[in-house]
Amino acid sequence: MPVYRIDLGYDGTAFRGFARQAGQRTVQGVLEERLARVLGGEVITTGAGRTDAGVHARHQVVSFEWDEELDRPRLARSLNGMLGPEVVVESVEQAVDDFSARFSARQREYRYVILNAPLADPLNRHRCWHVVEPLDLAAMNDAAQLLVGEHDFASFCRAPDNGSTTRRVLSASWALEGGMTVFTITANAFCHQMVRSIVGFMVDVGKGRRRADELETVLAARDRSKASNMAPPHGLILWEVGY
Amino acid sequence: MPVYRIDLGYDGTAFRGFARQAGQRTVQGVLEERLARVLGGEVITTGAGRTDAGVHARHQVVSFEWDEELDRPRLARSLNGMLGPEVVVESVEQAVDDFSARFSARQREYRYVILNAPLADPLNRHRCWHVVEPLDLAAMNDAAQLLVGEHDFASFCRAPDNGSTTRRVLSASWALEGGMTVFTITANAFCHQMVRSIVGFMVDVGKGRRRADELETVLAARDRSKASNMAPPHGLILWEVGY
Repeated sequence: MPVYRIDLGYDGTAFRGFARQAGQRTVQGVLEERLARVLGGEVITTGAGRTDAGVHARHQVVSFEWDEELDRPRLARSLNGMLGPEVVVESVEQAVDDFSARFSARQREYRYVILNAPLADPLNRHRCWHVVEPLDLAAMNDAAQLLVGEHDFASFCRAPDNGSTTRRVLSASWALEGGMTVFTITANAFCHQMVRSIVGFMVDVGKGRRRADELETVLAARDRSKASNMAPPHGLILWEVGY
Repeated sequence: MPVYRIDLGYDGTAFRGFARQAGQRTVQGVLEERLARVLGGEVITTGAGRTDAGVHARHQVVSFEWDEELDRPRLARSLNGMLGPEVVVESVEQAVDDFSARFSARQREYRYVILNAPLADPLNRHRCWHVVEPLDLAAMNDAAQLLVGEHDFASFCRAPDNGSTTRRVLSASWALEGGMTVFTITANAFCHQMVRSIVGFMVDVGKGRRRADELETVLAARDRSKASNMAPPHGLILWEVGY
């Protein structure tokens, strides 16, 4: 059966996350409902990243099977007409037959945005974490470097999606961008709440409450109680998915 | 009586504008209510710019009289504790005795932000106007230059605040900034809906629907029906007030 791929972005503020949940307003739930209305039949989608409530996506990918040929540009326009500015469909494309937005993905990039300043910014409050205490970016980058490679991230994951919490981090670094302190991390995949949990730890490093090299001890412990508090969801953005 | 000055910023999305209005949630209304609670008495404030519903302020200035000496940093902290991230107080200062945030202001700067792209940006939707049709920035700047100087802006104002709709524009220009098309205008003062009305006209110029030099004819007509549709409020930001 033909497989279609939808590339989309969304503001996660008013959603209970990406993944479909009965009785909750989720991005996948809203998207499937609109797809069903346009196509005239039930549509089950698969997403590349299951973002949590309040987490945004600059670029999320969703796939679904449909047994008829679709007018793809028209479907994109119809979806955008119905979804409104919270969720924007960038494109609808036909993919190869065994394509899965989730299982075909080779890597995901997330960004985490911090406003490190004495005062909050009202116009950016939905899309960054406001941290008042000055952060030591060099120390945070020392910690970030220790993430690169294959590790068991059990200490930084809520619960294993499957048996394993081992992931391969390809790159991880902090940088200043347009007044914001931005963490960029790429990995083959992420377990649940991994980026927010890592960011929470690194912000403790930036505040001088923990040392960068403690990251190795925490990773080795495979025990979530050894990590720090999680960073809030609204600073996190699913930035890109690579196939 | 001592006069105090509050510098603040806000996200105007969920407010019915700046100015106090019975039964409506406005920035001034909320601020006065919080001030009264902290200071233990009614407070009447004056604002530098009366922004409309949905319009934001990076930097608004408010003044009020109070007959006791205030612990200014503490008042700023108390207000921020109560106001939350939608409205952020930058500072509370004592001003000279005849200071008025409105009447002492020598100039105001507004910015209007347009996302000129085929697709909307979910994360910026509250703070820019999404215009799909490509805009001719050079033509828009030709029009902007014609705004500079003293003019009667009756064609671009909803209704005169007092008898006169004459204002002196000090600078006006369009530029690309970080993927956005941004209009920056400075004037001694603005009449009601003037920036949005001017932007609406200039966007018609940018789309090739009107010629830049028609601006002179429209100004001379002193007739609002000669203008274009107003740009929506959520792209507009009160950027700075000069004293």
